[in-house]
Amino acid sequence: MIHAIFDVTGCQHADADPEAIMTAMHHTAGRLGCTTRAQVIEPFQPHGATCVLILAESHITVSTWPEHHLAHIDVFTCRADSEPSQAIQPLLDLLAGQVTNTQHVPRTPPGSLLSSEALDECLADESPLQTKYLPG
Amino acid sequence: MIHAIFDVTGCQHADADPEAIMTAMHHTAGRLGCTTRAQVIEPFQPHGATCVLILAESHITVSTWPEHHLAHIDVFTCRADSEPSQAIQPLLDLLAGQVTNTQHVPRTPPGSLLSSEALDECLADESPLQTKYLPG
Repeated sequence: MIHAIFDVTGCQHADADPEAIMTAMHHTAGRLGCTTRAQVIEPFQPHGATCVLILAESHITVSTWPEHHLAHIDVFTCRADSEPSQAIQPLLDLLAGQVTNTQHVPRTPPGSLLSSEALDECLADESPLQTKYLPG
Repeated sequence: MIHAIFDVTGCQHADADPEAIMTAMHHTAGRLGCTTRAQVIEPFQPHGATCVLILAESHITVSTWPEHHLAHIDVFTCRADSEPSQAIQPLLDLLAGQVTNTQHVPRTPPGSLLSSEALDECLADESPLQTKYLPG
């Protein structure tokens, strides 16, 4: 179980279109090997947004604060093989900022961590609704 | 800026109705003095859910893992006066578990932390869309 947080500062494009942010989040999910389940985009005026992408493996959130050239990114996944720091590159390319605070937050895992093979096997049975409930 | 995480274990009711979880999340937001903006509930089969409540001040997420009697709660808010550990009591009451891992994750704040008075003043002008963009 990985909960990685990234604070991105000096963003030249923290005011990016929320739809473009969501597109980059989908690319991030793809790089993580995760399965997307639902999304919500909440734009703020005059700019900025909070965007959430719910995964079979948990979720990704991005909040932007254009007046402060700041973005907060959270990547929370039960895939033990994920590399969030690389997977968020599409977001960093879009926001054009630098990660100045990154942490891996220890979370209580639901049983043992899932290997890529175990998760792929689970997903391959076309029962995506079961992906959160693998045996521990 | 507060990002508090709580892992709740030994939950007797981690399989609570996702709508009931969302109701408890709204109560938590109310206790925090936060303004709700959007919500998404993603149920999983045979049970469990990921629920997200987007706030003017950031967001609350809850993911449940009934087979493991486990729930992950995140409370992320720019209200400097919030007490998430008390505010999540409606969720703890519903899930009937114990917080066995709690952390305050340092995040880069968007300018200075907001006092309760400053935020109330901002909200009182009936421009909730501006609440994310107070001067730092």
